[in-house]
Amino acid sequence: MSEFIPPATRFIALPSPFPMKDGGQLHGARIAYETWGMLDADAGNAILIHTGLSPDAHAASHPDDPSDGWWERMIGPGKAIDTDRWFVVCVNTLGSCKGSTGAASINPATGKAYQLDFPELSVEDCADAAAHVVRELGITQLACVIGNSMGGMTALSMIERHPGLARHLIDISGAARALPFSIAIRSLQREAIRLDPLWNEGQYDDERYPESGMRIARKLGVITYRSAMEWDGRFGRIRLDPEAREDDIPFAAEFEVEGYLENHARRFVRRFDPNCYLYLGRAMDRYDIGESSLTPCGDRHRDALDALATLKLDKALVIGVETDLLFPLEQQQEIAEGLRRGGVDAQFVAMPSPQGHDAFLVDIERFGPAVRDFLNTLLPAA
Amino acid sequence: MSEFIPPATRFIALPSPFPMKDGGQLHGARIAYETWGMLDADAGNAILIHTGLSPDAHAASHPDDPSDGWWERMIGPGKAIDTDRWFVVCVNTLGSCKGSTGAASINPATGKAYQLDFPELSVEDCADAAAHVVRELGITQLACVIGNSMGGMTALSMIERHPGLARHLIDISGAARALPFSIAIRSLQREAIRLDPLWNEGQYDDERYPESGMRIARKLGVITYRSAMEWDGRFGRIRLDPEAREDDIPFAAEFEVEGYLENHARRFVRRFDPNCYLYLGRAMDRYDIGESSLTPCGDRHRDALDALATLKLDKALVIGVETDLLFPLEQQQEIAEGLRRGGVDAQFVAMPSPQGHDAFLVDIERFGPAVRDFLNTLLPAA
Repeated sequence: MSEFIPPATRFIALPSPFPMKDGGQLHGARIAYETWGMLDADAGNAILIHTGLSPDAHAASHPDDPSDGWWERMIGPGKAIDTDRWFVVCVNTLGSCKGSTGAASINPATGKAYQLDFPELSVEDCADAAAHVVRELGITQLACVIGNSMGGMTALSMIERHPGLARHLIDISGAARALPFSIAIRSLQREAIRLDPLWNEGQYDDERYPESGMRIARKLGVITYRSAMEWDGRFGRIRLDPEAREDDIPFAAEFEVEGYLENHARRFVRRFDPNCYLYLGRAMDRYDIGESSLTPCGDRHRDALDALATLKLDKALVIGVETDLLFPLEQQQEIAEGLRRGGVDAQFVAMPSPQGHDAFLVDIERFGPAVRDFLNTLLPAA
Repeated sequence: MSEFIPPATRFIALPSPFPMKDGGQLHGARIAYETWGMLDADAGNAILIHTGLSPDAHAASHPDDPSDGWWERMIGPGKAIDTDRWFVVCVNTLGSCKGSTGAASINPATGKAYQLDFPELSVEDCADAAAHVVRELGITQLACVIGNSMGGMTALSMIERHPGLARHLIDISGAARALPFSIAIRSLQREAIRLDPLWNEGQYDDERYPESGMRIARKLGVITYRSAMEWDGRFGRIRLDPEAREDDIPFAAEFEVEGYLENHARRFVRRFDPNCYLYLGRAMDRYDIGESSLTPCGDRHRDALDALATLKLDKALVIGVETDLLFPLEQQQEIAEGLRRGGVDAQFVAMPSPQGHDAFLVDIERFGPAVRDFLNTLLPAA
């Protein structure tokens, strides 16, 4: 799996054993991360970024890796997340395959990849592992934690499970709980992988790899990450160029939008481990801050708003996108409302971006100023 | 394929050969249909229904088939489409597998199923075949043509290609052209079928049938036929009953919404022919009334609105649903606007149903009165 790890990545070992929320434990596990900027002497200028489902820790270019990161236009000297002022840490989530320990990693008990022997994974485990990285870096309190998409869930979980570890929050296109439309999408992505005969109950290798299942899963993801509004303007009914067509193949692609999906699938398949995809997707389905924050002897059900109202933060910025199908705007409104109930100064922004759930990756013209302005309010007065 | 044909179905032969729009022709082809009510002496009370992608002609119960039809609550004595007043015809679309000729039918040239030897299929062919049925039934002019979903495309195409064959139109959750979000969904449904090794370039049989591909295709369809709003209220985060769970299967369903999708898949797979699904889906992708109505020597591009403005109708009712992901409301607004440009008295209704694209099948409380009131205006004064 080493080909998945970007060159500037560093590692921090997790406590061994590392207990998992739903039982099981990991031995010799690690978290991959990258950093940008300099940590102040009092370690007061640290920002942690939790990614979405699939990104690695390479959020931005770096002296050790000048290639563009997945949030290149957002992070760097003078950019919205200004690395001249902030010490920025991005972690690859526990359970992923980009350097952190996951189902594709070697199980020290057997010397072979975990595959389906990896223990049950939860968003809470991802949050605990990231909290460990923060402390190992000598940071007692983050100035801000930022989470996008699944990372927005992880950020909430970290604040809930590690009170005081972050003073401020930027939650972008996140959710306090998974709802049935997104569960249905992820369930279908998993089913496409599981029904691929080459998945073979998780026991595939590079020679016999569930490529068909991963293609379907990725294309379904991309469809739900963007919006009909964007695609109407971008693709309309434009046909593929004749040289891009394979007209001898029955029912091959004809429209540009089909070629766009194909390019996305080609860039993803064999670059992400199928079992890790299954584990991470199900962890998202299971996440509900209301269920998560129940005490063992407490109620059977707790409302997400009530759980959010217990979170300790000074201020929060919660951003959603009007065209987001997968994490609809109501879910970010819920986060802001819950935080406010608990007395947090929570600002809610509904972005009119046409790019749907992915807008934070591409619509930097809108997201950059919002993030910059919020972070500026956290700086000491000049 | 005979098991797919409901018992009250009757048949009308198409002209042989029947020329297809994109080349090729059919020999000995037929259209399956059912009727309800009595045709007036002057054949002036006829209503034709074009279905969506997959329904058969059994839209309502019938003396020869008392089982519920797919629009049972809408059609019958005293119902919104009142069979005491109207003679109602529903056709199974050309290219389907519910009695009309399609890829699963026997090719008289070979004595075996067409499979991928079926010629290119278009919405225009479906419209031409239905127009033939209407005339064979002795109907010179339909009082009204009704089309739902794909049937909304077919209805527009029939009016465009057979001017004067219908005086009035009810177009429900239809579209004048396919747009990229819905093309992407249908393309992915096709890919799931094509990637199933048992599809075998269309040469499957009951023993070796592409069940996995059809499961994925159907579940993806169901996800896009409903809405997140409906599912939040209906399923929330409710878990499956323990007896419905298969916890020994890795990554098996946990949530009720997953069980719902599973039930839909079970009811569809092996009840619809995979090749027919491929042909019909691609016909929808290719449909654009602007492209369709171009003369051979005319412009390369014609706007859908301009094409709609050429349609000859007295009145039209165009209904869309605010929560429809697949045929969004803008597409029905476009139909109404185009018809009005051509002088048609076109009423547009935006239904606030939570059930998305499928609302016309289930939200009869809203759709029934709208359809009834419109049809009542077509009746002679008492």
